[in-house]
Amino acid sequence: PNGGHPSVYADWLPAPGQPTLLFYGHYDVQPVDPLHDWCTPPFQATRVGQNLFARGASDDKGQFLIHLKAIESYLKTVGSLPINVKVWLEGEEEINSPNLPALLDREADRLRADAVLVSDTEMLGQGRPSIIYGLRGNLNFELEVGGPRHDLHSGRYGGAVYNPLQALCEMIAGLHDPAGRVTIPGFYDRVQEVAHALRQELRCTGPTDEDILTDLDLPQGWGEQGYSLFERMTIRPAVTVNGLFGGYPGPGSKSVIPKKAAARLSMRLVPDQDPLRMAHLLRRHFTAVKPSAVSTRLRITGSSPPVIIQRRHPALSAATRAVYHTWGVPPVFTRSGGSIPFVPYLARFGAPVILLGFGLPDDDIHAPNEKISLPNFFRGVETIIRFLQEYRL
Amino acid sequence: PNGGHPSVYADWLPAPGQPTLLFYGHYDVQPVDPLHDWCTPPFQATRVGQNLFARGASDDKGQFLIHLKAIESYLKTVGSLPINVKVWLEGEEEINSPNLPALLDREADRLRADAVLVSDTEMLGQGRPSIIYGLRGNLNFELEVGGPRHDLHSGRYGGAVYNPLQALCEMIAGLHDPAGRVTIPGFYDRVQEVAHALRQELRCTGPTDEDILTDLDLPQGWGEQGYSLFERMTIRPAVTVNGLFGGYPGPGSKSVIPKKAAARLSMRLVPDQDPLRMAHLLRRHFTAVKPSAVSTRLRITGSSPPVIIQRRHPALSAATRAVYHTWGVPPVFTRSGGSIPFVPYLARFGAPVILLGFGLPDDDIHAPNEKISLPNFFRGVETIIRFLQEYRL
Repeated sequence: PNGGHPSVYADWLPAPGQPTLLFYGHYDVQPVDPLHDWCTPPFQATRVGQNLFARGASDDKGQFLIHLKAIESYLKTVGSLPINVKVWLEGEEEINSPNLPALLDREADRLRADAVLVSDTEMLGQGRPSIIYGLRGNLNFELEVGGPRHDLHSGRYGGAVYNPLQALCEMIAGLHDPAGRVTIPGFYDRVQEVAHALRQELRCTGPTDEDILTDLDLPQGWGEQGYSLFERMTIRPAVTVNGLFGGYPGPGSKSVIPKKAAARLSMRLVPDQDPLRMAHLLRRHFTAVKPSAVSTRLRITGSSPPVIIQRRHPALSAATRAVYHTWGVPPVFTRSGGSIPFVPYLARFGAPVILLGFGLPDDDIHAPNEKISLPNFFRGVETIIRFLQEYRL
Repeated sequence: PNGGHPSVYADWLPAPGQPTLLFYGHYDVQPVDPLHDWCTPPFQATRVGQNLFARGASDDKGQFLIHLKAIESYLKTVGSLPINVKVWLEGEEEINSPNLPALLDREADRLRADAVLVSDTEMLGQGRPSIIYGLRGNLNFELEVGGPRHDLHSGRYGGAVYNPLQALCEMIAGLHDPAGRVTIPGFYDRVQEVAHALRQELRCTGPTDEDILTDLDLPQGWGEQGYSLFERMTIRPAVTVNGLFGGYPGPGSKSVIPKKAAARLSMRLVPDQDPLRMAHLLRRHFTAVKPSAVSTRLRITGSSPPVIIQRRHPALSAATRAVYHTWGVPPVFTRSGGSIPFVPYLARFGAPVILLGFGLPDDDIHAPNEKISLPNFFRGVETIIRFLQEYRL
């Protein structure tokens, strides 16, 4: 028990002198709605051809089962494991793991390991295994704009009163310049310049602009000039509106200048953009650009720092060799634009977090008809078995 | 019956050689919600001090009763009316009188009159009667912006995909320049220059900027430079956002770039801004400024043309004298920023529509605790009685 949904822990530690690997996974899942879009019952694993469909099939119960099956295979055949192993499964990942920092503090000794293995990410495509070594951080916030004390008739007052909806649009439109750069003063100040060689590597291994646009069925991309779409998604920070709210929501029309309007936004952060500092810059920016005829309220609703995982570590070398031997190709070391809240916490141990996932881009995680590819599942089990061997000193 | 809620008609026409006056009113009302904000039952007229509280007390059942009481008083004392009178009460004003044009066509002979009297407006304040001679027109529209085929994860794609919410904000922010002027090309082309003398008159009779801001409890106004707030509300056109919709509406936050976003907007039009032409300019403008990475859809949801009522007409002179004799002050001839959809239709008769109302700015029409001032009610009855006398040839 950790104050919320319980965590499950197990270990096998009789390998003196060998490193200790912590397997991390989560058993909680996203809601299944809209239910009528599912072709199979979401809470009953259903095999269709080469895929197994169910909520959690890829995120993350199916992928965690890969870990357990690898351990089970080893114990059933050899009778022991080549290294020390800890297994930890939690139940709050999908709600940002609110009780995790306290649990990590309390159980630090028990959970400490030389490396952490997480299979909660995707490969770049069929037969293209990847290890994620960088995740963007995030900062979620809400901006509320207040105008008159109560709603006004827009026929009567339209043209003479600053409309909170309009002020909100102006403030959001003003967050980017025509070149797609974020205009918040200081926003890019501490963004790490990414080495030319690394950009070259991302260009070779990551998807091209065309790949991404074809995938999304979009005619063109958008964003910061001078960077490829994949770079904009991974090594560059971003500010995104996630929701707008204000005015009459019903059918037809209503002549109203509402008393307030609000937007939900999020920042994606790269090293070394500290969420706290970004919140400060944000507050200063909105105070400076706020039209004097309206009031604003900024509320930070969540954050996690960006993470870069060191690539030179025996555990990562072992994972690389395991992938190469099992898949016939080396893993692509790449970065992801998303955020995994628990990874920065895990990184506190000082042990590398190996993000080696076996999902596919079309697994529809968080969406209806989530699935896992069974060939990937079985090859994943082989990869983990091989990793346990390779990580042995 | 007129296809929707029935209209009620009555007449008294035995005054040969005298003009015919049409009294127009509406018996339908706005919804009463939020019900818990009412201090008295909304559908039971309740007297509290000098006021009568009920839905429709001012808009428009109470004000129409003023007409009926004036006619009744005349008939009960003198036994006949000094002029010919038609009385017409409809039941669809609050839903934009959809069946009214057809009814006017069908019953043109029956409804034809030399002047129309409507008491559905407000005075400028206690003891400051007004006759409205100009109403702004309106054009309601919805702008929808579409991006990717389905919602995207904003962590993964943030910074590389044109967000429909952002494009919508940019397009709305771009509707005004920093001087508060509407940027739609051609928007002001046919706006009638208002004569200096008329502006002077509005300045003397209308509320000052300070009056308006005090009334609204706002620190400052907004809008087109070079015009007073009252001018911006009455003789100048406006474009106003009435609602914004898009993205995750629930509690907490969700990392989404939604596939679409939408806004409801309205234009208030002054002579000679034709709604059809404005719709055309709007369509052309949005096509021109639309970022190429998103799609847009513009939908016109309603319109009514602006109206100016000729001030030189025997009926208006009679109304002016009636007000002067009853209230001790002449009526203030002024304009209103709102729109009354039926007035342009009534104007088809070629007869002047006299907008002489006895409401007060704090009557809370369309809101909870709507009321009418009883002293105003009784003085209104006297005013109409006097008007019937004055309009006699």
